[in-house]
Amino acid sequence: MKTVRELDLNDAIRLIEGAQAHAIRIGVPMCIAVTDSAGNLLAFRRMDGGKITSITIAIDKAFTAAAARKATHDYGEASQPGRPAYGINTAIGGRLMVVAGGLPVSVDGEVVGAVGVSSGTPGEDREVAQAALDHFAVAAAA
Amino acid sequence: MKTVRELDLNDAIRLIEGAQAHAIRIGVPMCIAVTDSAGNLLAFRRMDGGKITSITIAIDKAFTAAAARKATHDYGEASQPGRPAYGINTAIGGRLMVVAGGLPVSVDGEVVGAVGVSSGTPGEDREVAQAALDHFAVAAAA
Amino acid sequence: MKTVRELDLNDAIRLIEGAQAHAIRIGVPMCIAVTDSAGNLLAFRRMDGGKITSITIAIDKAFTAAAARKATHDYGEASQPGRPAYGINTAIGGRLMVVAGGLPVSVDGEVVGAVGVSSGTPGEDREVAQAALDHFAVAAAA
Amino acid sequence: MKTVRELDLNDAIRLIEGAQAHAIRIGVPMCIAVTDSAGNLLAFRRMDGGKITSITIAIDKAFTAAAARKATHDYGEASQPGRPAYGINTAIGGRLMVVAGGLPVSVDGEVVGAVGVSSGTPGEDREVAQAALDHFAVAAAA
Repeated sequence: MKTVRELDLNDAIRLIEGAQAHAIRIGVPMCIAVTDSAGNLLAFRRMDGGKITSITIAIDKAFTAAAARKATHDYGEASQPGRPAYGINTAIGGRLMVVAGGLPVSVDGEVVGAVGVSSGTPGEDREVAQAALDHFAVAAAA
Repeated sequence: MKTVRELDLNDAIRLIEGAQAHAIRIGVPMCIAVTDSAGNLLAFRRMDGGKITSITIAIDKAFTAAAARKATHDYGEASQPGRPAYGINTAIGGRLMVVAGGLPVSVDGEVVGAVGVSSGTPGEDREVAQAALDHFAVAAAA
Repeated sequence: MKTVRELDLNDAIRLIEGAQAHAIRIGVPMCIAVTDSAGNLLAFRRMDGGKITSITIAIDKAFTAAAARKATHDYGEASQPGRPAYGINTAIGGRLMVVAGGLPVSVDGEVVGAVGVSSGTPGEDREVAQAALDHFAVAAAA
Repeated sequence: MKTVRELDLNDAIRLIEGAQAHAIRIGVPMCIAVTDSAGNLLAFRRMDGGKITSITIAIDKAFTAAAARKATHDYGEASQPGRPAYGINTAIGGRLMVVAGGLPVSVDGEVVGAVGVSSGTPGEDREVAQAALDHFAVAAAA
């Protein structure tokens, strides 16, 4: 038997609120998803103006970051032509996302969930996902 | 061209909060989804203890209620063996839900979105979805 | 080698216009799909007020009626509990529709395509699909 | 609540007719799809000689252009190896199209739907989609 730590719903909402506040600051309405460590959805918000295509993409970025315990932008590099993970983006029916914007949420070095963001450029998506993690870390430390 | 009204994110969160408050009252942690009138996800929460299977079920109940403009329990009756809509539950890759818990959200007789609830009995799911609508109507009237 | 007759695009539009005219007469906005004999889409219209869920359902009713050369309501009877085709509605990823509203289009006893209709009751859907066939037969005879 | 404008069926047919006329001019039979702003199909035609594979491709190009509010050829550039959106083409079960031929339809700077074209070269598909928009703009101005 083992014991695992998991995000609860309040943690998920805190992560989303951190992302949403930053999305407002940069003026890009986003789809924001938070999953548990198994990649299953905990909470989701589509801000007014977020893209319809980004619903699934945000959820799948969070799924990938949690369930593979890896930032989606790291997969982006590893899956370039000629690189070891080339072609991985079609795995799991296309759910394995290699575009930036999915980040694992870790506590004491252990992945407890993930956040996925989509609707901006991949750089903006990643920045907003990072803002979620920063906001969560501050709240956890308080 | 035509003009349609849609729920915004604040409306969606209000609906979820109404559902969540009632789920707490009856002691059944739920998955709660809100979509726009086309059935695309606006907001989602899995309460602590909500079921993993219910993530998709809640989302698909809301999708069905919005995109077909019909409560999922009405499909439940119409799709019994020998009834006209028998077999409809497997349509759209199985996304068309005929189990209670999906309710359209209407304003002035126009469907503007839907709420979908899952994790309890179908009766509890429907009751919690109705609580979302009641809470939304009170807020809209205030 | 063999030679097969197929609907062309003009035939498909004529079928849709027959359906659309009847849908207007009965006051039920419909999704209307026409496929060739292989079940592949030739033409589609969603009337203003047609349901989003009915896009896929109308297309799949036409697919079923063409590719199985059978009216979907015949499958509805044959797939009732205890009947020989029980469970067929989940076949082909749920694309095999057993709800009324899909009718093959035949010329000289040969199936050359199909029409699928959805958004009303199954009875209305079937009636509107039949109107497409009647309109097509009159045009072909003229 | 918010209010959005949408294409109606007449608009969709007008867009298709503009595309079809240009396809005839260049002698390339096409599959032509028009969706609403959420990416849901409004109307579709497969011209005689249009490709079977292009049914889904045209529909998904329109879906992408509408639901992501971006021309599919812009995704084509942004998703080249080494570029930020590399790998995005397999998202949403492969529905996110990065091949030219999907264009958003905008009115007063607001995306109200999209057109998707397939069966020719990507350049021809894009040219025919653009002809749909040009025809629609002329009709709207008249």
